[in-house]
This record gives sequence, C-alpha cells and structure tokens, in this order.
Amino acid sequence: MQRLVEGLHHFQSEIFGSQRALFERLALGQRPETMFITCADSRIDPNLLTQTAPGELFIMRNAGNFVPPYNPHSGEAATIEFAVAAIGVRDIVVCGHSHCGAVEAILDPPPPARFPALTNWLANAESTPRILRDKYPEADPTRLLNVAVQENVLMQLENLRTHPVVASGLAQGNLNLHGWVYKIETGEVFGYDPQARQFGPLTLHRDGEGAAPPAARSV
Amino acid sequence: MQRLVEGLHHFQSEIFGSQRALFERLALGQRPETMFITCADSRIDPNLLTQTAPGELFIMRNAGNFVPPYNPHSGEAATIEFAVAAIGVRDIVVCGHSHCGAVEAILDPPPPARFPALTNWLANAESTPRILRDKYPEADPTRLLNVAVQENVLMQLENLRTHPVVASGLAQGNLNLHGWVYKIETGEVFGYDPQARQFGPLTLHRDGEGAAPPAARSV
Amino acid sequence: MQRLVEGLHHFQSEIFGSQRALFERLALGQRPETMFITCADSRIDPNLLTQTAPGELFIMRNAGNFVPPYNPHSGEAATIEFAVAAIGVRDIVVCGHSHCGAVEAILDPPPPARFPALTNWLANAESTPRILRDKYPEADPTRLLNVAVQENVLMQLENLRTHPVVASGLAQGNLNLHGWVYKIETGEVFGYDPQARQFGPLTLHRDGEGAAPPAARSV
Amino acid sequence: MQRLVEGLHHFQSEIFGSQRALFERLALGQRPETMFITCADSRIDPNLLTQTAPGELFIMRNAGNFVPPYNPHSGEAATIEFAVAAIGVRDIVVCGHSHCGAVEAILDPPPPARFPALTNWLANAESTPRILRDKYPEADPTRLLNVAVQENVLMQLENLRTHPVVASGLAQGNLNLHGWVYKIETGEVFGYDPQARQFGPLTLHRDGEGAAPPAARSV
Amino acid sequence: MQRLVEGLHHFQSEIFGSQRALFERLALGQRPETMFITCADSRIDPNLLTQTAPGELFIMRNAGNFVPPYNPHSGEAATIEFAVAAIGVRDIVVCGHSHCGAVEAILDPPPPARFPALTNWLANAESTPRILRDKYPEADPTRLLNVAVQENVLMQLENLRTHPVVASGLAQGNLNLHGWVYKIETGEVFGYDPQARQFGPLTLHRDGEGAAPPAARSV
Amino acid sequence: MQRLVEGLHHFQSEIFGSQRALFERLALGQRPETMFITCADSRIDPNLLTQTAPGELFIMRNAGNFVPPYNPHSGEAATIEFAVAAIGVRDIVVCGHSHCGAVEAILDPPPPARFPALTNWLANAESTPRILRDKYPEADPTRLLNVAVQENVLMQLENLRTHPVVASGLAQGNLNLHGWVYKIETGEVFGYDPQARQFGPLTLHRDGEGAAPPAARSV
Ligand SMILES: [Zn+2]
Ligand SMILES: [Zn+2]
Ligand SMILES: [Zn+2]
Ligand SMILES: [Zn+2]
Ligand SMILES: [Zn+2]
Ligand SMILES: [Zn+2]
Repeated sequence: MQRLVEGLHHFQSEIFGSQRALFERLALGQRPETMFITCADSRIDPNLLTQTAPGELFIMRNAGNFVPPYNPHSGEAATIEFAVAAIGVRDIVVCGHSHCGAVEAILDPPPPARFPALTNWLANAESTPRILRDKYPEADPTRLLNVAVQENVLMQLENLRTHPVVASGLAQGNLNLHGWVYKIETGEVFGYDPQARQFGPLTLHRDGEGAAPPAARSV
Repeated sequence: MQRLVEGLHHFQSEIFGSQRALFERLALGQRPETMFITCADSRIDPNLLTQTAPGELFIMRNAGNFVPPYNPHSGEAATIEFAVAAIGVRDIVVCGHSHCGAVEAILDPPPPARFPALTNWLANAESTPRILRDKYPEADPTRLLNVAVQENVLMQLENLRTHPVVASGLAQGNLNLHGWVYKIETGEVFGYDPQARQFGPLTLHRDGEGAAPPAARSV
Repeated sequence: MQRLVEGLHHFQSEIFGSQRALFERLALGQRPETMFITCADSRIDPNLLTQTAPGELFIMRNAGNFVPPYNPHSGEAATIEFAVAAIGVRDIVVCGHSHCGAVEAILDPPPPARFPALTNWLANAESTPRILRDKYPEADPTRLLNVAVQENVLMQLENLRTHPVVASGLAQGNLNLHGWVYKIETGEVFGYDPQARQFGPLTLHRDGEGAAPPAARSV
Repeated sequence: MQRLVEGLHHFQSEIFGSQRALFERLALGQRPETMFITCADSRIDPNLLTQTAPGELFIMRNAGNFVPPYNPHSGEAATIEFAVAAIGVRDIVVCGHSHCGAVEAILDPPPPARFPALTNWLANAESTPRILRDKYPEADPTRLLNVAVQENVLMQLENLRTHPVVASGLAQGNLNLHGWVYKIETGEVFGYDPQARQFGPLTLHRDGEGAAPPAARSV
Repeated sequence: MQRLVEGLHHFQSEIFGSQRALFERLALGQRPETMFITCADSRIDPNLLTQTAPGELFIMRNAGNFVPPYNPHSGEAATIEFAVAAIGVRDIVVCGHSHCGAVEAILDPPPPARFPALTNWLANAESTPRILRDKYPEADPTRLLNVAVQENVLMQLENLRTHPVVASGLAQGNLNLHGWVYKIETGEVFGYDPQARQFGPLTLHRDGEGAAPPAARSV
Repeated sequence: MQRLVEGLHHFQSEIFGSQRALFERLALGQRPETMFITCADSRIDPNLLTQTAPGELFIMRNAGNFVPPYNPHSGEAATIEFAVAAIGVRDIVVCGHSHCGAVEAILDPPPPARFPALTNWLANAESTPRILRDKYPEADPTRLLNVAVQENVLMQLENLRTHPVVASGLAQGNLNLHGWVYKIETGEVFGYDPQARQFGPLTLHRDGEGAAPPAARSV
C-alpha cells in the first residue's frame, strides 16, 4: 500500500498540475461516448490501450468481462442502464483478453466448495464450453483458450441485446455494439466482423467509421 | 469509435515497444497485491491516479463502487472471491469520488419506471440516505453529497466483511481494507482513519505502512 | 367441467379408435422436431393451426409467449433445455398472436397491487414499450398493439439466444429460430424475414426449405 | 418446417372458412371457463382430448406440468394470476400423463452439468421422490412411474393453493381444482377423487357436476 | 441490557441448580416432538403458554409467524427441513396471536420506502387481504384483524404443505399440522378444526388425541 | 400434542390469573427494548435464561441463529426491520449455544440431496469453516465446535451491520449489538468483548452499563 500512497503523492505533485484544466472541467460533469466492458485483470489498462484521457470511457470491469442476460436485480444491468439511459453512450465495447483467468476457469472449473460464488458466476458463460465442445472437439488447450476468449465475447454481445436499454438503442439505430479481444503479449486488439463472422485486425477507414461493424437487428 | 481505433494503433506503434518486456512478462501471469474497487465513472483512471503500471491493480468497477452484502449469486461476490482466493491480493481499496452520479441518484432517485435496474441497485445503498437523514438533517445539498460519498464508501467496507473470503482473510490477519475518496477537481485522495473515525489526507510513514489503517475485527 | 368430461368420453368412444395405432406408437416415445412457444390464450390451437398430429409439436405456453433471458432457475429455461438437449428439436417457433391480452397489458399495465406476479412478468417485456415509444411515437392504439405483438416476438428470439443450449445449437448450425404472428380473425400467420427485416406471409419454396428464414449468428 | 408451413396453408385454405364465424367472434375477446395446465409433451393435444373448440381452454404448458409454490417472480404465477384474476376462470385442471419424460427425470435425474436448468426445475418436484421412497419402497420401475405421475399431479394441486388468487377463489367458493392423469396408449383420463383419496375414471353425473370433486379448504 | 445481565446472574445462581439434571441431560441432545412456529412478538412465551420445559418445543419465530411457500433458499425452509428430517418432530403448530403487528401491517401496509424488507415479507401474506376483501367486505376493523389473524394461520398451513419434508411426512401419516390462535388478553388458545372449518377452544379428549384434528391429504 | 393442550389448560386455569394485569396491559401494545436472536433449538428458553417477563424480548429464532447479510427479500431482514424501525429496540443480542446442531452441520455438512434447503442455509455461514480451517488447523472436534459457535455469532454481528436500519441505528448511536454464547450444561452465558477480542463472563457494572460492550463503527 505504501507504493500506492507514494503514487498518489506523485500524481498530485507532478502530474495533476499539467491536467488541471481538464480535471476542473470534468468536475462539472462526464459525457463519455463509449462504455467499455472489460475484465478486472490487472494487466489491462483501458485508457492506456486506447490512448484515451479521463472523461472518455465509462468503464465496467468484473472477472471475465461478463454481461449476464438481463435481470433487473444485477449490478451489471444497473451499470449498463446508467450508461445508456442516463449518460447516453453511443457505443459499447466488450473487450476480452488473452490468458484470461476467468475464461480458463470456464474450461477448467475450480472446486465449487472453495469457490462457490465464482462457480455460480461462471454459469453465466455456460454456453461457451458447450459451443467449444461441439465446434472444436479436437483443439489443443492453448488454441482452445484463444477460441474460448472469442466465443465468450460474442456471448456477452448476445446477452447485451436482452437489456432493454440496449434493445431500444439498437432498434432506434443510435447504439452500436463491438466485440474486441486484446492480446497482452503483442498489444494487438482484434475486432469481431459480423459480415466475415470472425475476429480480425481493427483498421481505420477513410469514411470515418473506423472498423466498427454496423450492429444489425438479427433473428 | 474511430478515435478509439486510432488510439489502439497509436498505442501499438508508439507505446507498446518501450514496454514490450513488461507485457511479455505479464503474459505469463498476473500477481497484483491490491484489489481496487471504484466507480465506472469515466473521469477516474486508477492507474493514473496511483501511478501504477499494468499488473499492479486488480480492478472492479460498477456504477457507484458498490459491494453488495455477500450473496453467492452476484458478479461482485465472484470477482472478490477470485481476487482474494485465487489471486491472493493483500489489500482491498474501495475508492469513491466527488460528483458521483450514482451517489447523487441515491439522494435523488431517478424514476423507477425508466430506471428499473438502477432503482434496484441503489437499494444496496439504502442505509446511506437513512444515515444522512438521521445524522445530517440540516446539511445543504453540496455538503450532503460529499458526506454521502464518504458514508457510501464506509457502507461498502462493512458489506465487504460479509464476504467469506474477506472475513477469513481479516481473521487471519493477511488482508486489509481501505476506504478512499478521490476529489476529481483537485486530484486529492482522502483515506478513512478508523481511529479518528474520519477521512483525512493519506500520508507516508517511515515504517513502511503508508497511511493504510490497520483493519480490525469489530463488533 | 361437465362439458369437458363429456368431451373426454366422446374422444375415447368416438375418436381414439381411429388413431389407436398412432397413440400406441407414441406411447413408446416422442420425437418431435419442432418446439412451439405460444401464448396461453384459449383462442390458439397450435395443432389445428399447423394441421399437425399428436407427436409433432413440443409446446410451451404461458401468458404472452415470453422467453425470459436465460436464468437457470426458470421453468422456461428448463423446458427449452429439455426440448433441445434431451429431445433434440431442430426448430423453435415463437408464435405471438393478434389481440394478445398480455401484450395489451405491456402497453397498459394493470394495477400492481392486484396483479403483482403479472407486473413482474411483464418486466420481461420491458424493452417492447421502450422500442415502441422510440420508434412509433405517433401510432394509434390498434396499430401500436399489432406492432407490439411483432416486437414482442422479436425480443423473445433475442432472449432465446442467451439460453446455452440454443446458443450451442445455433453455433453448430443444427437449430433454427422462427418468429411468427397469428392473426386470429383471418387465420393468417406471418413470419419474420431477417433479410427484409419485417414480417410477411409464409410461403412455400420448391427447394424444401419452406419460408423459414436461415437463422444467422449476429453481433 | 416446410411441413408446418404446408399445414398453415391447408388450415387457411381448407379449414378456416368453415369456422370463420367462430374466429371472428373470438377476435373480440376470450372467455374460457377452464385453465388447463399440462406437460409440453408433443403427444398431448388438450383440445383433441377434451373435444373443445378454440376459446374454451386457457392452456399453460411446461416440462412436467409443474406449478411451483407461489413466488411472485415466476412465469407460472403470472399466467395463473392472469387466468384467475383477469379472465376469471372457474376451474383449473392439472393434467399429467403416462410416460412423462419430466417425471422420469425426477426418478432418474439427468447429469446436472449438462442439464443445469432442468435440474433446478426438478427440485420443484422434490417431494415426489421423497413420498415414493417412503410409501412405495418396493415398487417396480413401471409402477413407480405411474405412481410418480399421480403424486406429481397432487403436489401441483397443493402448490396451486399457495397462489393468492387461487387461495382467494377457493375461500370464496368460486374456483375448483382438479387433478387428472391422461394415459396416452388408451386415451383414458383418470381424475383424483379426494373422498376416495385415489384416482379413478371420470364419470358423468346427472346433476351436472360431472365427476369434478368438490375442492375443499383443508388443514 | 443491565436488566438482562442481572437476569442471567439470577438464573444461574438461583434457578439453574434445581434443574441441573435436566440441563445436563439436554446437553447430550434434543428430542422435541413438536415444532412451534410463532410470531417474534415479545408478548408470546411459548414455553409459558404450553407449560413445557426446555427440550420440548423446537421454536421458529419471525414477524407474523409466516411460512413462505417452499423455496429452497429461505431460512424458514431450512429450519423446517431441520426440524422434520434431522430431528424428526411429529407435530407442527403454527400459532398466531391477537393484536399482531405484522397482521395489522398486512391490512394497513407501512410505507415501502421506509420498510422495504417488511413490504416484501408481507407479500407472502398477499392472499389474506384478498380473502378478507372478498369474504368479509363489511367487517369493522377489530373484527377484521381477528379474522385476518385466523386466515393468516390457515394460509401458513397451506404453505407448509408445499415443503417437501412436510408433504412426505403427511403422505406417510407420521406428521400432523395444527393451526392455533393465542388471545393475549385472556390467555385462551383457539385451534382450527378442519371438520367444522372454524377455530374453537382446544379440548382434552379421553382417547389421548387432545383436540388436534387429523391432518388429511386434500385436493 | 395432548401434553401441550393440557399445558394450555393448566396455564389458563392456574397461571394466567396471577398475571392478568400484565397481559391486559400488554394487549394494548408491546414496547420491548431488546431484540433477541437465537437458535430454534428446543433447549433454549430466552425468557427463562434472562428471567424476563412477556413483553421484554422481541425474539427471532431459526436453525443456527443466522442473520443473512442484508437482502430485502428475506424474512430475517423483515423481522429486523420491524424490530428496529417499527418497534424501536435499542439492543440486539445474537445468542449462540453449546452443542448447536446447525453449527455441527456447518462443520460436518449433511447430504445435499436429502437436505437441500439446509445446505443452502449453511452457505450463509460459509466463512465460519474457512476461518476455522485457517485459524485452528489442529483443534480437536469438541474445541472446534465451541470455537465455531463463537465465530458463528461474530459473523452474524458483521452481517447485522449490513442491514440498513442497523447501520443507521449504529451511526446515530442509539442501537447496540451484543454477541452471546449460552452453555446449556452449566447455565453460563459468555459475552463478546470487542476490546479484549474474546468471549468472557458477563459481569455487572456499577455504572449501569452491564457488561454490554460499546458497539463502535469500524472499518
Ligand atoms: Zn480476464
Ligand atoms: Zn461515480
Ligand atoms: Zn396472448
Ligand atoms: Zn410430460
Ligand atoms: Zn405478531
Ligand atoms: Zn442451535
């Protein structure tokens, strides 16, 4: 903890001054355009990764970057409702990552008696091992983990669609969903392309859309 | 979104190279010593604030930095269980902040019909307005919000104690809890001092304990 | 009730004999290929409508033909899991209908004190009025009800995708989802066409696919 | 699916015309006097069995014809509340059936890891195997299944009594409950006789009561 | 509290000695034959009322002597399961009382914002006001409260029947249920007589059955 | 049961008369100053133990004297809310006891298939075995049970603090919490002393505070 307190002092004495104007403005209110949902994993720094400043990303983090199917009694539903209906974000990114311990736990569950809450939480990702077992019966463990991380992101995007504020935003065309996977060892981020039905590098387009695929109402 | 994709490209081409060794090491595993629980608010960057690098903070974020009382079916319980029992963090910081929209919503609830999930979520902080009403009957709104942010952090610390892995860590003496409040407009962070029963500046001690107060078993 | 008992006697003495072979075969086991989810409304007879015999449709019925987002503690999840993983159905039809009292109750909610369970149940369709309010702000009541019935069916299809056995079946390509609306007064049934993004008459194709649109994985 | 679409076309072109008057009248509203709760099993056609027309039976179906004890958050409670308090049905029939896969699963539970939702759902029938184990310790499997189907129906009748609208209807004397078992291979239906405390053939009485036994308030 | 500590000292120095043998024997185990469910109300002393000694009554108490319909996640279900399946009680008494504050709250609900948990809890007795409204539309408040206390006891008996260990015990004939109402101001206790369908004085029978009515399986 | 009915008659004919004035006064209302939470165990008679009369203790009892962490849908939360916010008790005692069968079940869990509700209920005490395993790895079973009873009481005190009405009462300083353990075989009661961090004999102080330790807000 001493290290953190030293960090706070360093931030305040050396860093804050140069960003004072930003922080004073931010004290008046936040207007982020993006909700960023990622894992609690210590290796992820969303602002570093996207080179964004305070005020730009509304960030929800939990073990495994899960979004449970809508249930009005969950913290995730409340945080998403706040982001969309109170703040008015226009994009929601679900960002998984390589070497995710929570996804590893989906594939190799920990003992329920020692991890009762985690065991229940992983049930939210119950379809991921079903899909893997069915689609990649022969994959080796490393490849399986990579695929599981991707499938897990896609499942959370499906789950997001059951949240009323998300369903409403999609129907009106003023909200977009994005699935990303961050590879810690290379710094790369891959985005899901619904047309190609696969993850690929995120590229910049001249027309200002970035690589964000259009989010379509689907059956 | 284009802005984010540009940021990703900038991170990868300009920043990642200088930290490659760190990230390659981190790809082998995370060993953070601290769990940091804070609000999803876009204005908070925990790594910037504490001047920590990737790998140092296991971060849970939701609207209002709430920790519901233990219930084995919540995502918060699973994330805390993962942090303490799987990763082995030694400190848990609950960090509230000035101008918190979720705490404002505790004091001035949004319409339940439009915000059903948020309304349920705020019920987790139900004791905060009770305490305020009883203890600060005459406070003006600004002061009330500041006090509410502090009381909200203290309530989450109580709630943390009902999580079995936290109760066990406290009983064994290998886990410490800390309550912080971050003031966005000045960059200051205040810590709760259980001896003094109030929040105050976090100071550095020579004996290596920082300002982190000892977490005691209480009745 | 006397009427029903008379009906049972009539069925047994006049009807059963001619179908004895079918029923004796069915006693050995059911192998329906389709799960049919529709409203409890008395005006719907799924077997009459589709001219199917006993043994062909596995039928789940409740007020409003709702499929709550996956939650392993609901009867709907259990019935769907049974249909897909134990029986092996290949198609799931969600069939709404004109003049649906449950959808009317979504648009014009009954008093919660008298209808507490129904009020909670309608919360599952919470996104329907949000979407209607946003997309059809000027529609007259009759048209609004028709549109609400359609949107309600589409929302249930999204919710179905969060059920692990459904997600797995879709990923493997051996399950298809279909959205229908039955118009009681004309006997017509309209199917959702994901390409055209609208409901239209169900037509017969020469290639043996019927009008059932392909169910695609979507983001 | 093609078969179903052909069926729809056949219904509309060949059948609907002769019942047009009925369907046009039904479009104005439903007034069924009976709620019929039965299994989702494809082999049951309630309208065929009771020789009733559209508009006569309000039908709830799920795997096992279960009625969970009252809980205001279940779909079953909402559907029952709608039937009794909004529509005003006078009779509720719970109809089990021979060879029921859900009751077989009560006696021989499927693997929880593959059937998590079904496992939870069967817990609603937890008393059935307890009663069987205690009352029929020596029964062979076939007889045990038949007895389990009967006990399962009786348990659902007890559970129905905990639903407030049912309790109120029974107390006022304007609602009656009936337990039936349908034997697929013979077309017979057996009704529970609370006086005799056993299931027997449903017989017609001259006095217009049918075989429906009086539903009495009991301790 | 000083009063209680004085009481403890008095008990130990003046009372315990004369009952030492009983308490030493009880330290080896409890074998109560009766589970007594009553209100947390301070005016009720079950052992005084029934003139029983320690070891004779297994006692569950909560606000309103409620038994929620079976739900395997409630403390009431666990306590009942423990009493019947682990201890083996033969009788369960549900004992309501005159002037019950919880039953008053059913008839005149407190503000939900100040009493959120109580409001939810009273929903368990939701059928009581429905029955009263329907059956006693003209009763004056005092009479209404007395009738509500009785109806509340009867509803809890119905709810008890949905608990699997109770259903099993009743089916086997080795468990009996009893409904009582205790009138504080006169010391009288009235028992429900299912034959007469009303509460009446509990009388002693020569044949050793007391006034406890036989608990019959009902439809 | 006959024994109980005889007891009721004896109470009414021999005992009630001498306390008529008390009971008639109590019929006008209860004003207990203490809420007493203890086990349903038949060997505990709270009024005998504390030598208190009817009207002095508001008593909640369940298997194991558990207080689940706050959850607005539990009976325990409702009963506590009623005690503090409606009745206005000033002290809450959680009283465990020697030879507690529920605490034994924490240490040696019963088979979940036979005790599903109890298994879930014991999960509320999940931290107790974790703490014991960590702090007393070598203790023999008898000592372990004694320690477990104590730790269980302390955990319930932590859980109590998450109940909003308790948190508010503590913050205002008008509510005190007390942890007791009752030793059946000796009649002794031990109280938790937060200063000494251990249980000890409850002693009388001249200053009128009894041995009740001050309940302090803690981090
Ligand atoms: Zn991760
Ligand atoms: Zn905030
Ligand atoms: Zn309908
Ligand atoms: Zn069946
Ligand atoms: Zn009471
Ligand atoms: Zn005990």
